[in-house]
Amino acid sequence: MDAVVCGIDPGLLITGYGVVRTCGSREPVVVDAGVCRFDAKAPLETRLVAIESDLDAILSEHKPDIVAVEQLYAHYKHPRTAILMGHARGVMLLVASRRGIPVRSYAATQVKRYLTGNGRATKDQVQRAIQTTLGLSEIPEPPDVADALAIALCCGADSDRTAIADLRPMEVAE
Amino acid sequence: MDAVVCGIDPGLLITGYGVVRTCGSREPVVVDAGVCRFDAKAPLETRLVAIESDLDAILSEHKPDIVAVEQLYAHYKHPRTAILMGHARGVMLLVASRRGIPVRSYAATQVKRYLTGNGRATKDQVQRAIQTTLGLSEIPEPPDVADALAIALCCGADSDRTAIADLRPMEVAE
Repeated sequence: MDAVVCGIDPGLLITGYGVVRTCGSREPVVVDAGVCRFDAKAPLETRLVAIESDLDAILSEHKPDIVAVEQLYAHYKHPRTAILMGHARGVMLLVASRRGIPVRSYAATQVKRYLTGNGRATKDQVQRAIQTTLGLSEIPEPPDVADALAIALCCGADSDRTAIADLRPMEVAE
Repeated sequence: MDAVVCGIDPGLLITGYGVVRTCGSREPVVVDAGVCRFDAKAPLETRLVAIESDLDAILSEHKPDIVAVEQLYAHYKHPRTAILMGHARGVMLLVASRRGIPVRSYAATQVKRYLTGNGRATKDQVQRAIQTTLGLSEIPEPPDVADALAIALCCGADSDRTAIADLRPMEVAE
């Protein structure tokens, strides 16, 4: 099933995004990828307004079928950071959802496992897997772009599997 | 200084709000108060859209000068809940900020200390303090309304103090 997936690596200073088109059995293709940078000196609420505006522009341009956002895990060592990141992620889910775009969440370990077969793969291993899968001449930089592309790829493969699973009962019925 | 303050007690199931008008040396007056309820069975992103819409309607109606939102503290026992609440709170800060309304955050202990003189006051003590301060015949129900009014009262008193502090250098200069 062809689908345009927008992967997001959420952050309050840098948010990575990667838009990928999956093409059935062929390798997926990068449509767009980059980062949104937010003013570190601005108060949280001002940054949230910038996040809304930047992400809305990306979704408006690419009209993805799915938005996939990395899950926040409960950083026991830095609970305050995780809560602040939750603020940013909440705005991201809002922007996608009010456009009627389905939202998927993936844990970092799920994404790593999909790309490398190992949920605890290093950043370097993940980056090389992305480079190979997408046939890129260079590793995407900064790492936030690579992470966002990784989420998009994981979600793209996941929705393919879901689509196939959905079809099965019908094939059996025929 | 007269000001309309909207206090918010953020929640993903019930969000309390309380709009209060401060009137200089006189006691503050309740303008509006209530709760927004969200569908417990709906996915997070759907609830965030409802939070945006409900809060925007409240701010549009009352045009407060300040929005005061209770701070989330890092629940070490329930980090996942705190992160999810962060999503809702992020949408709340966004809605206020993009209307150009200044946002203030208050810790629950600050609010309790302002109302009762004790940062560890019980819910019952806080509710009675609100009832007295606002001259209400009954304790506001559900507790989310009382909490939102408490935040609004704390912020109202705080901005009065700030306004006075801001004026002082000018008075000295004269």
